Amino acid sequence: MADEVAVRAQAETVRRLKQDKADPDEIAKEVAKLLEMKAQIGGDEGKHKFVLKTPKGTRDYSPKQMAIRERVFNAIITCFKRHGAEVIDTPVFELKETLTGKYGEDSKLIYDLKDQGGELLSLRYDLTVPFARYLAMNKITNIKRYHIAKVYRRDNPAMTRGRYREFYQCDFDIAGQFDPMIPDAECLKIVHEILSDLQLGDFLIKVNDRRILDGMFAVCGVPDSKFRTICSSVDKLDKMPWEEVRSEMVGEKGLSPEAADHIGEYVQLHGGLDLIERLLQDPKLSQNKLAKEGLGDMKLLFEYLTLFGITGKISFDLSLARGLDYYTGVIFEAVLLQQEDDHVEESVSVGSVAGGGRYDGLVGMFDPKGRKVPCVGVSIGIERIFSILEQRVEASEEKIRTTETQVLVASAQKKLLEERLKLIAELWDAGIKAEVLYKKNPKLLNQLQYCEETGIPLVAIVGEQELKDGVVKLRDVATREEVNVRRESLVEEIRMRTSRP
Amino acid sequence: MADEVAVRAQAETVRRLKQDKADPDEIAKEVAKLLEMKAQIGGDEGKHKFVLKTPKGTRDYSPKQMAIRERVFNAIITCFKRHGAEVIDTPVFELKETLTGKYGEDSKLIYDLKDQGGELLSLRYDLTVPFARYLAMNKITNIKRYHIAKVYRRDNPAMTRGRYREFYQCDFDIAGQFDPMIPDAECLKIVHEILSDLQLGDFLIKVNDRRILDGMFAVCGVPDSKFRTICSSVDKLDKMPWEEVRSEMVGEKGLSPEAADHIGEYVQLHGGLDLIERLLQDPKLSQNKLAKEGLGDMKLLFEYLTLFGITGKISFDLSLARGLDYYTGVIFEAVLLQQEDDHVEESVSVGSVAGGGRYDGLVGMFDPKGRKVPCVGVSIGIERIFSILEQRVEASEEKIRTTETQVLVASAQKKLLEERLKLIAELWDAGIKAEVLYKKNPKLLNQLQYCEETGIPLVAIVGEQELKDGVVKLRDVATREEVNVRRESLVEEIRMRTSRP
Repeated sequence: MADEVAVRAQAETVRRLKQDKADPDEIAKEVAKLLEMKAQIGGDEGKHKFVLKTPKGTRDYSPKQMAIRERVFNAIITCFKRHGAEVIDTPVFELKETLTGKYGEDSKLIYDLKDQGGELLSLRYDLTVPFARYLAMNKITNIKRYHIAKVYRRDNPAMTRGRYREFYQCDFDIAGQFDPMIPDAECLKIVHEILSDLQLGDFLIKVNDRRILDGMFAVCGVPDSKFRTICSSVDKLDKMPWEEVRSEMVGEKGLSPEAADHIGEYVQLHGGLDLIERLLQDPKLSQNKLAKEGLGDMKLLFEYLTLFGITGKISFDLSLARGLDYYTGVIFEAVLLQQEDDHVEESVSVGSVAGGGRYDGLVGMFDPKGRKVPCVGVSIGIERIFSILEQRVEASEEKIRTTETQVLVASAQKKLLEERLKLIAELWDAGIKAEVLYKKNPKLLNQLQYCEETGIPLVAIVGEQELKDGVVKLRDVATREEVNVRRESLVEEIRMRTSRP
Repeated sequence: MADEVAVRAQAETVRRLKQDKADPDEIAKEVAKLLEMKAQIGGDEGKHKFVLKTPKGTRDYSPKQMAIRERVFNAIITCFKRHGAEVIDTPVFELKETLTGKYGEDSKLIYDLKDQGGELLSLRYDLTVPFARYLAMNKITNIKRYHIAKVYRRDNPAMTRGRYREFYQCDFDIAGQFDPMIPDAECLKIVHEILSDLQLGDFLIKVNDRRILDGMFAVCGVPDSKFRTICSSVDKLDKMPWEEVRSEMVGEKGLSPEAADHIGEYVQLHGGLDLIERLLQDPKLSQNKLAKEGLGDMKLLFEYLTLFGITGKISFDLSLARGLDYYTGVIFEAVLLQQEDDHVEESVSVGSVAGGGRYDGLVGMFDPKGRKVPCVGVSIGIERIFSILEQRVEASEEKIRTTETQVLVASAQKKLLEERLKLIAELWDAGIKAEVLYKKNPKLLNQLQYCEETGIPLVAIVGEQELKDGVVKLRDVATREEVNVRRESLVEEIRMRTSRP
């Protein structure tokens, strides 16, 4: 529990760190702590105040947001099933050890659970490592599966841009020993299908290969030991200009300026089959075994993508690196391009919405005998897609229904609660989606208003006369037309009127 | 990281605790630690060995298990939507403070996250407290929502009986100020519909009311301060005989033997409207304001349940207590009764599969001004339902398909990979669920076998002759019949053959 003394001490810590020009990450951490403590004591009041919020970097989904989320999930799941994928699920946490050594510099972002006796656990950071653990544990050497679940990263959230600490990943992976590039091409086809279906505007899928990157580093004179760290510098090229990346390579990472400049020439290149052909002739790259292998496979990949008819949106891009340690072959990332809709463009920063690649060594890291299972997969990052669609819905003022209720059971007079309950039970038992107001004697106007607000299309009205006549008055909310329907035909009539054409 | 010295020290701790006849929970905890450490160092080898497993009390879901899970979810979601519920989602963790003081004695089972700087977080223990936090935070006073998500409890898992540390809850709740017992009756109707739909065999829904319990405790001479602890003793009556519960009340909790015996008379009672009427005349209970209120509402509830036609499976049961602190009115719990199927009965212990009740004070605990939002809800505990259905599937040898693939694109000769890829892209783009083997030159036999194994009903075979003739050979896997279909009619033909009647 924070108090004022503690807050002052923390403020002093932050001041000192800033003065000392400490590591920005550390300063940020201490500032966050300070804000936290301030929030806890509620400003200057010096009193503990309960803060009514979700944890930093997380959010609730309201019914309206859920309706949008369901649409996106449906599009994605439909696509995964179209490609014959099975589905699995794994626990939200793993043994801490399972995640150790898989994520390179990003490992610091893993959420650990408190040691409360028993095993040391961490929240999953992605769905790929749990998938590899699942394969090794169950000795599965051949599967095509999807998995949609939340993952957790103690990152600096930028929620307005769709960056959260708890967020969904939608993963599709193909595991097994197959002929080269056929599953890899299917993964790219899937990204293409999903982004087209969701109508998010124009997009581009950048493709590269870890072997081409490593070969390029080798011919540029990067020492073996610096491959991974130089790779993560290259990965920043989508957010930083080359000059800054270069100075990180030379200044922070101790690369020779010549090597950096050499890399600089390559990473500007992007294109299609023509570029691949050109690089296969490149006097240096073509001498490097890894690069040659990678380029050969890239050529094959582009041939398959041509058969799929999707090369128009694919770019072989030598600046694409991807941060994670476990990739071994093809890597790719899909980005949304300039939106046509200016309104949306202003408020949502456009960025990466899918990524993936080949990771042939990961399952072997879990197998006691190191047996490898080659894998390739794609992960759709749907939080950004949500952000875009949500803002689009806001802008369009489209009305989204959050329930599927077909009919409200209402009464015209008082003292008919029992009759309403009897009727609604009949409807429920027949599979009709029905609601009733939880009031003994609701006004008819209130009941009709409820339908208007929630988009219920029909009202079944019971009144004394109707009960005597064995009918129910069925009202169409939109047209206000009312007809008497015999009670025994009511279910059929509601079904008919609410079935989608 | 454990080493042998640490293991020996831990073994000594356990030995000492046992000698001292320490608290069994503590011994169990230390034994668990010891086993953990032993597992880590890999028995006697003294070497660290990585353990390939999911965390204790958790499991993966295989594609087959997922197929069963989807069926259960569908039945439950269909029911929730039939009753007009919206859906929300909340983060998997909450501020630790949000969960504090809501669960009584069960609070010790909450998973905390490690303090890595920033907020103190805990994994959610149920979906009810996050729901109440959501309502207070968004100032919502009126909603009917469902929420299906995993919750976390550091309990002693008994996985064969469907008890896990990570498990799903399917919650439906109605929040708002309404006329008494109408939403409460709907919750019971929902449990009745779901358990009937899932065909789990006979079931019984026990109902009671916290006010009746508290009134009963008062007239039996239980001091106010002991209400909650005596209530949690009563809650054990489904697992322990009365004699043991009585001795806990008197021995451990210091209740007078007379009061205990008095309680003993009441908690044996169960029945329907007749029992409620009888207790309304009970000379002692009828003098207690709380009990009288509770009994009055119970009578109303049974009247509504009669209108719903479901009293046959409902029992007013004075021994039902429910452990959680937050209930304020009606409480209920559904149990499966003796299964007809002996095979299943042997392996699955039958128990509670749904529970819930009214909690009118919980939202107010989160509101800065203490504004109350009355709520009533039900939680379906689907892990036990899974266990039962899973074992039923195993026993029946029913074959469950784990994909929805309609057609395999195959080739009869070599060197037709390109043609297969072109054809499958056409099918995918037309929305057909299609697969292709990831081999350059697969044998036709292997392709047909793959269909047999995975249940794919159709094979579209491309061969040189077919390509010349502009046709595709469509084979029905079950009947082995083959017909040539013009390429432009293929999509239509596949759709027709695989549409469900």
